[in-house]
Amino acid sequence: MVTQDATPGTYDFLTDLLDDEQLALEESVREQFAADASPHEDHLPEVVVWPHTTAEVSAILEAAHEREIPVTPWSGGTGVEGNAIPTEGGIVLNTYEMESISVRPDDLQAVVGPGVVYDDLNEHLARYGLRFAPGISSGDAATIGGMIATNASGINAVGYGETRDHVLRLEVVLPDGRTIECGRDVIKTSAGYSLKDLFVGSEGTLGVVTGATLSLSGIPERKRAALVTFPTPQEASSAVSEIIRFGLEPGAMEFIDKQSVELVNDYRGEEVFPVEPLLIIELHGNNSGIDEDVEFVKEICEDNGANEWLSRSGEEMEDIWSARDDALSASRAYRENYQPAFIGDVVVPISKYPEIVEAVGRVADDVGVFTPMVGHAGDGNLHYLPIVDPDEEGAMERANEVNERVVETAIGMGGTATGEHGVGIGKRKFMSTEHAEAVDVMADIKEAIDPTGIMNPGKVLPDREG
Amino acid sequence: MVTQDATPGTYDFLTDLLDDEQLALEESVREQFAADASPHEDHLPEVVVWPHTTAEVSAILEAAHEREIPVTPWSGGTGVEGNAIPTEGGIVLNTYEMESISVRPDDLQAVVGPGVVYDDLNEHLARYGLRFAPGISSGDAATIGGMIATNASGINAVGYGETRDHVLRLEVVLPDGRTIECGRDVIKTSAGYSLKDLFVGSEGTLGVVTGATLSLSGIPERKRAALVTFPTPQEASSAVSEIIRFGLEPGAMEFIDKQSVELVNDYRGEEVFPVEPLLIIELHGNNSGIDEDVEFVKEICEDNGANEWLSRSGEEMEDIWSARDDALSASRAYRENYQPAFIGDVVVPISKYPEIVEAVGRVADDVGVFTPMVGHAGDGNLHYLPIVDPDEEGAMERANEVNERVVETAIGMGGTATGEHGVGIGKRKFMSTEHAEAVDVMADIKEAIDPTGIMNPGKVLPDREG
Repeated sequence: MVTQDATPGTYDFLTDLLDDEQLALEESVREQFAADASPHEDHLPEVVVWPHTTAEVSAILEAAHEREIPVTPWSGGTGVEGNAIPTEGGIVLNTYEMESISVRPDDLQAVVGPGVVYDDLNEHLARYGLRFAPGISSGDAATIGGMIATNASGINAVGYGETRDHVLRLEVVLPDGRTIECGRDVIKTSAGYSLKDLFVGSEGTLGVVTGATLSLSGIPERKRAALVTFPTPQEASSAVSEIIRFGLEPGAMEFIDKQSVELVNDYRGEEVFPVEPLLIIELHGNNSGIDEDVEFVKEICEDNGANEWLSRSGEEMEDIWSARDDALSASRAYRENYQPAFIGDVVVPISKYPEIVEAVGRVADDVGVFTPMVGHAGDGNLHYLPIVDPDEEGAMERANEVNERVVETAIGMGGTATGEHGVGIGKRKFMSTEHAEAVDVMADIKEAIDPTGIMNPGKVLPDREG
Repeated sequence: MVTQDATPGTYDFLTDLLDDEQLALEESVREQFAADASPHEDHLPEVVVWPHTTAEVSAILEAAHEREIPVTPWSGGTGVEGNAIPTEGGIVLNTYEMESISVRPDDLQAVVGPGVVYDDLNEHLARYGLRFAPGISSGDAATIGGMIATNASGINAVGYGETRDHVLRLEVVLPDGRTIECGRDVIKTSAGYSLKDLFVGSEGTLGVVTGATLSLSGIPERKRAALVTFPTPQEASSAVSEIIRFGLEPGAMEFIDKQSVELVNDYRGEEVFPVEPLLIIELHGNNSGIDEDVEFVKEICEDNGANEWLSRSGEEMEDIWSARDDALSASRAYRENYQPAFIGDVVVPISKYPEIVEAVGRVADDVGVFTPMVGHAGDGNLHYLPIVDPDEEGAMERANEVNERVVETAIGMGGTATGEHGVGIGKRKFMSTEHAEAVDVMADIKEAIDPTGIMNPGKVLPDREG
């Protein structure tokens, strides 16, 4: 951990802006905000603040801007790319306390603070029969602010879209303290540059989101689910590609390779999953047509060589999704001293899904790193976890080699280096490969909006040359 | 018409970059690019160019940038807000010739040039059972480039989203001639600032879109349609609001008020529509569940006081949609010397739809302007057409008063001044009301990307103070 302590007096200005309990200079508190869920090096902030209102966020940023003090917004701390590590010390601006929820059921909208936890929001919305739908694994801790920051999504994005698709309006405090509204409380508009889309996915490098209007989805009245096993990962991924091509719209469609199945079963001490490459398929609907869709999906799976179609009830699915969410914990428990070097997160056009699955297997074998895979297959999104003992010589280098070769392959297919985890620190090295000269335009925008560069420094954009 | 002729020699540089038939200096040709479909004053460009390739667009912009010559990109010329009128003369850059279409059916994607006409694209895609779905009235002339420029949509946006939702990747030539790629050929990504969303809806003020990857939808196997009549516009719009709230997802849901019905029937010389406020409702689906949804929608309409539910076949619907598209022509044929002063295009949160419909009626009565309404009601989008004799004293002022009062009401409800037509010249005056200080951020971005201000000057952003 890099430690960094403030010169005495540096943060006195905060005591004029906040109550005592809204800021912490003690190392024991600051330590809790030095690391996210990634393997990137911890870095201690100099101070942590908990504003309650937009006006307080504005006052903090205005003062930090004048003093050129780095500010790193903090939401759930569940990032896996170092997105919220305060790599230059300064202020960690924690949005936990901004957790208001106001539901407008007649408009299928909710106005929420950035500190609202994903699962809490959905629990609150359930009484209205509504849901904020992207579906993320770390929903018990991840906040809406963090999801907006990284344009997060997960198992339900195939049916419902990513966070961006659900953000109608944002309240944003700019780096100099000005507060703006981006977008409107409507589902379509052509009124000028879509600033809300610029702030979604900008990972706190352009300002602090202090509120959002989200569009909501109804909770589907009917669900059908199955585990479908295949002889090989290629056959499973071919089925995925074909299901999407036929215009079927699953609510979720997860791919789990045999290595991940074994990891999870070991971790849980029970055979949650049959030991084969498999798909978890969930269909959502409000009328009886859903059963025709189930038959169609089943037929496509069979045509692609499926071994078994195991129908599952809603109750059984809760356990299955919880087991799926255990994949990361299971990979951490693989062997003593071993851990995933990172979580790969590429997306490719859906027709290339079988090829990218094959490529990960081949590259991992070639480099010699145990690399289980899981993925939100219906989106073309594949996660892979090279598991290594970081203290073993060359192990991290081999894991990185896997990543570089896979990302390069994905980008070569028209794909992306990061589907839902954001860029943070870890994916900065791929930005120029993926975006080429467009990175310069991103940097120009960053400079126009945050000329002193105080907002979440060291994230998203690669260092500028020249 | 404002005429403006080039100083001899000004455009000689273009002859080095293009073949003779790719540029026109003759007034008779230039006249065709002085006006769009709006009532804004015509303005003659000094030269019109037809580049065939991205490299040619790049060379033209680089040279124009050096010489600080205004460039107005031109697509279908169907804009209704003066979006493509070359208000400062200079170059009209016509993208008609960039009309390549490459379909990737397995990925549900097409890569297209900006000059492709909407209906032509869908005719081409039909052989694959696919469709680019936003659904616009002027689809026989509007191009994909223009749709991207204004984030256009229309009758099908309620079921399929606006243009933005279908744009995965853009090739853009920046004002200084650099070419960048924004976005990737995938349906989700978290890799940095979403530049493609910045360029969608920027109306050619930030660069020229020279290519796009679009995501496609399957052509639905089943459609059900009906005309539903109501005693009052309020009851019709209450039904709309409730249908959306219950999570039903119509493929189209149009509102037509009694005045528009009468206009269209007169124009067509037949009673296409029953003479009452009505909804055109279309449901799309791929399985037999669609008939349950029809029953549900019908029940909601009845609960909201519907007079009649008139089921319509697919064949009949073609005529009905064509009649709906005649609303604008019909308003132009209302009476000799009369024309719509503009096309109102507000969007409000869906629960406010009955109120905005009521507000338009009340304001129009109050001001004393005949103002028929039609609208993509399922989106909360309402069009209203104040029809006046522009030569009558005070007529245009009265029409503008209707617009200003309605837009103000819509914005007060959390809505927007323009749902699908863009800002162009006509809606600039509402930008500060709608976006407040966010307009400054838009202007900063404009300045960062187009520092010499050559791209489509006089559009979208209000003049900057100070």
